[in-house]
Amino acid sequence: MEVKGWSRVLCSILFFVAGFLPSEQGRPLSVSKPDPEDASATARWLVSQNSWGVLNTISSDLGGAPFGNVVSFSDGLPNEGRGVPYFYLTTLDPTAKNAMKDERASFTVSEYPIGTCGKIDPENPTCAKITLTGKLKLVDPECEEAEYAKSALFSKHVEMKDWPKGHKFQIYKLEIKNIFLIDWFGGPKPLTLEQYLHPKMNKFNFIG
Amino acid sequence: MEVKGWSRVLCSILFFVAGFLPSEQGRPLSVSKPDPEDASATARWLVSQNSWGVLNTISSDLGGAPFGNVVSFSDGLPNEGRGVPYFYLTTLDPTAKNAMKDERASFTVSEYPIGTCGKIDPENPTCAKITLTGKLKLVDPECEEAEYAKSALFSKHVEMKDWPKGHKFQIYKLEIKNIFLIDWFGGPKPLTLEQYLHPKMNKFNFIG
Repeated sequence: MEVKGWSRVLCSILFFVAGFLPSEQGRPLSVSKPDPEDASATARWLVSQNSWGVLNTISSDLGGAPFGNVVSFSDGLPNEGRGVPYFYLTTLDPTAKNAMKDERASFTVSEYPIGTCGKIDPENPTCAKITLTGKLKLVDPECEEAEYAKSALFSKHVEMKDWPKGHKFQIYKLEIKNIFLIDWFGGPKPLTLEQYLHPKMNKFNFIG
Repeated sequence: MEVKGWSRVLCSILFFVAGFLPSEQGRPLSVSKPDPEDASATARWLVSQNSWGVLNTISSDLGGAPFGNVVSFSDGLPNEGRGVPYFYLTTLDPTAKNAMKDERASFTVSEYPIGTCGKIDPENPTCAKITLTGKLKLVDPECEEAEYAKSALFSKHVEMKDWPKGHKFQIYKLEIKNIFLIDWFGGPKPLTLEQYLHPKMNKFNFIG
């Protein structure tokens, strides 16, 4: 119990230090599509407004092939996302099983399902798309982050709380290392993890 | 010219022998959602009704990470798809560039954007999803298959024909090796490439 208590305190500290500060400390998230010149706002909007995407892992069953899988996700309570995608996965499915052998992963979402691309083709660069690359990690269920992630997921995906207990769904997150954002012509927008996680600082950096 | 002529004949023969027979020889594709028990019909419907998905490659720039990218695609003229996804890609984008170094790829589409999942969550197994795994190959522009693929792509994505010539878009296809289909509870549906490409034979095999 003592060890469990300390572990809980430690992971809670890490959760906050890692930049998961309350969204009030950042710029409020935009509900309408931001100006494409504002890369961090566009990236955060894309992630917070989407409810599903494709999570890619290295397939151990398919000789190391990249394996994309449709998953639901959440980066926070509605319109209060913090940018880090959380998932509710079971190792009965290849994605979580793959991540146990090789954590390398990416998560891809498109603006198209949000409905704001109009008649623009989904591949057209002005119909925004983002790929977050990093490591797919199991979130320690003892950690405060797990509680946060569960609220984030269940508030956007109400049926999740009733998914079969026997399937042993667990919370995973993408520990982001790299961001690939296309939201206009001219190739990917330069965007660091720091700028993505803290769009307020970003405003000062870019425009201030 | 002589060599080019022979090459054209050879690739045309391969195009037909590989199973790309006219769709009249297969069961007509369903426009409405097939019975989930009919795996091949569901898989073909998912692919033919979708216009975009996530194409996954091994990233040479990101240390071998699996890299998903939002792309448009087509497997044939509207409601006449043959199951093989074609793409219009440029090596200015990482996906085609990655495939030049490592052909291993997968392509993932969801039923969710088709609009037939209703209030079901995108991750719920009854909201179907498919991942085709194989090799991402450049289609020889001299081959008859390139003409077919171009019609397939441009009929569903009208703006493609006007995309900048300078970006050197080329036609790629996924040479499918493995099919992962989830369309109901109980895990992925067993579905061979042969059953996927020739759903009529499949009907005899499964139901007849």
